[in-house]
Amino acid sequence: MPPEAEEAIVTLRDSIEARDGSAFLKTAEEIHYADLAAVYEALDEQDDREFFLKNVSPERFSEVLPELADNLVEEALNQFRPSQQREILEATRDDDLVDILQDVSDKTRARLLGLLPKEDEELTRTLLNYGEDTAGGRMTTKIGRISTDLTVSQALDALRADLEDTETLGRIIVTDDTARPVGMVRLRDLAFNARDSSVSDIMRPVEQSILATADQEEAANLVLKYDLIILPVVDESGRLLGAITYDDAMEILEEESTEDIEKIAGLTGEQSEESYLNTSVLIHFRRRFVWLLGLAFLAIGAGYVMLRFEHVLDSVFLLSLFLPMVIAAGGNTGGQAATMVIRAMALGELEDGNILKVAWKELRLGACLGLLLAVCIAATVIFVLPAFRPTLPQNVSFPRLGLSVATALALQVTTSTLIGALLPLFARKGKLDPAVIAAPAITTIVDASGMVIYFTVVRALLGL
Amino acid sequence: MPPEAEEAIVTLRDSIEARDGSAFLKTAEEIHYADLAAVYEALDEQDDREFFLKNVSPERFSEVLPELADNLVEEALNQFRPSQQREILEATRDDDLVDILQDVSDKTRARLLGLLPKEDEELTRTLLNYGEDTAGGRMTTKIGRISTDLTVSQALDALRADLEDTETLGRIIVTDDTARPVGMVRLRDLAFNARDSSVSDIMRPVEQSILATADQEEAANLVLKYDLIILPVVDESGRLLGAITYDDAMEILEEESTEDIEKIAGLTGEQSEESYLNTSVLIHFRRRFVWLLGLAFLAIGAGYVMLRFEHVLDSVFLLSLFLPMVIAAGGNTGGQAATMVIRAMALGELEDGNILKVAWKELRLGACLGLLLAVCIAATVIFVLPAFRPTLPQNVSFPRLGLSVATALALQVTTSTLIGALLPLFARKGKLDPAVIAAPAITTIVDASGMVIYFTVVRALLGL
Repeated sequence: MPPEAEEAIVTLRDSIEARDGSAFLKTAEEIHYADLAAVYEALDEQDDREFFLKNVSPERFSEVLPELADNLVEEALNQFRPSQQREILEATRDDDLVDILQDVSDKTRARLLGLLPKEDEELTRTLLNYGEDTAGGRMTTKIGRISTDLTVSQALDALRADLEDTETLGRIIVTDDTARPVGMVRLRDLAFNARDSSVSDIMRPVEQSILATADQEEAANLVLKYDLIILPVVDESGRLLGAITYDDAMEILEEESTEDIEKIAGLTGEQSEESYLNTSVLIHFRRRFVWLLGLAFLAIGAGYVMLRFEHVLDSVFLLSLFLPMVIAAGGNTGGQAATMVIRAMALGELEDGNILKVAWKELRLGACLGLLLAVCIAATVIFVLPAFRPTLPQNVSFPRLGLSVATALALQVTTSTLIGALLPLFARKGKLDPAVIAAPAITTIVDASGMVIYFTVVRALLGL
Repeated sequence: MPPEAEEAIVTLRDSIEARDGSAFLKTAEEIHYADLAAVYEALDEQDDREFFLKNVSPERFSEVLPELADNLVEEALNQFRPSQQREILEATRDDDLVDILQDVSDKTRARLLGLLPKEDEELTRTLLNYGEDTAGGRMTTKIGRISTDLTVSQALDALRADLEDTETLGRIIVTDDTARPVGMVRLRDLAFNARDSSVSDIMRPVEQSILATADQEEAANLVLKYDLIILPVVDESGRLLGAITYDDAMEILEEESTEDIEKIAGLTGEQSEESYLNTSVLIHFRRRFVWLLGLAFLAIGAGYVMLRFEHVLDSVFLLSLFLPMVIAAGGNTGGQAATMVIRAMALGELEDGNILKVAWKELRLGACLGLLLAVCIAATVIFVLPAFRPTLPQNVSFPRLGLSVATALALQVTTSTLIGALLPLFARKGKLDPAVIAAPAITTIVDASGMVIYFTVVRALLGL
């Protein structure tokens, strides 16, 4: 960030603190809208937010609004008078407008829609019919589109006439007489070609398009995979409705990555557009509690196993020194394997048919990891532990203890790696979200299996 | 994906299977290069890959190469004759070329550089001097750039002359006489303006630029935050060197997200450009083992605590039923808190100054989570457990047992939440990568603290 921008942010914060309206207004007009939004989002106190909203111009705020976290939208908009609200909404891009209206209550949405000019209201209502997470719900309709029968010079005239209403000319979509997207041209193809060439001669074929009802993540992945600048969105008959632009795709990918990360950690809900500090304790609580409660009851299963093996601990209590290690090693390796597989699935690298390949890979991997860990631990038990002079029953020697613990460890790591890698794949086959049974659930499951493995193996090998 | 594209992919796979060179060649020419690369990446057998490379045209392969996972680049390139290698390298965009040369051994790199025309070789050597993860290492130099003193008509002529060498005209960068970027114009500003206007009158000021030595993630975050289509990259004197384009930024963000996810799961190394199936067991092994070994020894700490509290378990062995639950609840909530904080830091939401805010938020959150979990578990112990008729010592009643376990659980969840949220923040303050001490490490740390809390609390409350 250039030093002037950082200075401006500090000045703006100071002016809010000092309730200095004129300094605020002046700086707010100069600063980049993304920075302005960041400053607003970081305001903790309601008084500060109210001061900000009372003093910012509706025009400036219309640029800030689409950048705000979902949960801040309604409160902010409601600070403006209806005439200002109309001004704000009218200045907002159609796809952002839809996004904003999806973030407010039904009552507010109905009222805000009433403020829009008739034509915009209808378009917005149509777009609102697509789900928030679909290509249709994210697309913009303000794209450069020309008809296939134009010449370059006619096309340039058509685009010039529509310039106000066009968000991007990165790629211009060419449609046939049934409104289907059949080609794309770049503005440079038009600007640097003979004026009387025909558009249909210079256009490239449209290779990718997406249904309005398709998932937004699918759209974003197409943009990423095929290096697109714009992806046409069509209805069931293949008619052009709008487009997903590269910047929408970037936002979608960022949101979905956050969602993936949160699911892996056992966080529910799709609140990834909100910032950490701005999310209330209550919402954080709701997102975490259900998982914690379910996992707590699942973990009692591991406790039950421990209870049943009381006599093993009774005979050699020193075994409890390695119990948490064997359990945790399983949880850690299972969590690693699960995370790798879940991420590979999210990036579209793994299909259902790959289950056997994954199983074979993770089996070898788990066995190698387990064996090497086992060697390290056996060495520790045999060569290091005696120095601490712990009490052992007469019939148990250090080498025998080491081998028993190491065998249990190797088995636990191997099975946990396999469980961690395969559970997400099976979950998807069973139409569950693979990330839902991610790391924490896998850890808890392999905790219980680890208890069983540990006690069974050491009991057998130590002859207890 | 349109059905024809899917069909082509199947045909291509079949032709490889059948070793049908002419069918392969025909389909490989028609298919999108991103799909062609995906087909190649999915080939397991060396024979199949060799057939693919023997039959694909060097021209086509030059489009595929930049899409390949890092670890596949060298083997693939080496299948071509030097003259073909030159053809492939010459057809590759400068930023992709640098990326490719960074993926091969020093020896191969030196040899490949020698194949390039003098001018390209020098440029490439300069770009190679920037680290792989820096803005300079990722930028393209083939951007539209014009000088501030031109008219619109002169600018269009200049751009037309350079068209072959220009990767993007999404934004054209305007430089002053010291080669500093001072403005940007869109091609539409030139195409739809009077020919004799001056470029300096219609350009917008450059608000963002980045040093070539800056981290690529910083560059990508700027592109995302400010909705840029192109971000100028400058040297220390502020002179324009090249630019990061939105599609580079998208790739960077995707790679960094994968890296974040992997670090959170305790996977080392920066191999995120490789696909899961294509990474060898050995490399997977190396990325996971060090973490597992370290955590295993850390977990012996928890075992030591358990060993020291032998007498508690001896008196009331039923306590082992809840031991794994209390421990796991701490690990889970600590992992959740750590993940949220690490992600918020990666997205630039949290500064070092926010530590107290985070602490206060997570303290309340941990206390609420702990209390509600404790109530659920206490109710289970008091009302459900007696039905199973477990043996309890005479001086311990079910309500007293329930309250003791619940108190330990509440304490463990509260402290673990706080530890999970704060450790990554302190790690960053101490110049460590916050993700490095992520979920698995935190789980292991709170395992040990959970043992101490559990045994201390139940011993005190049950009077053992």
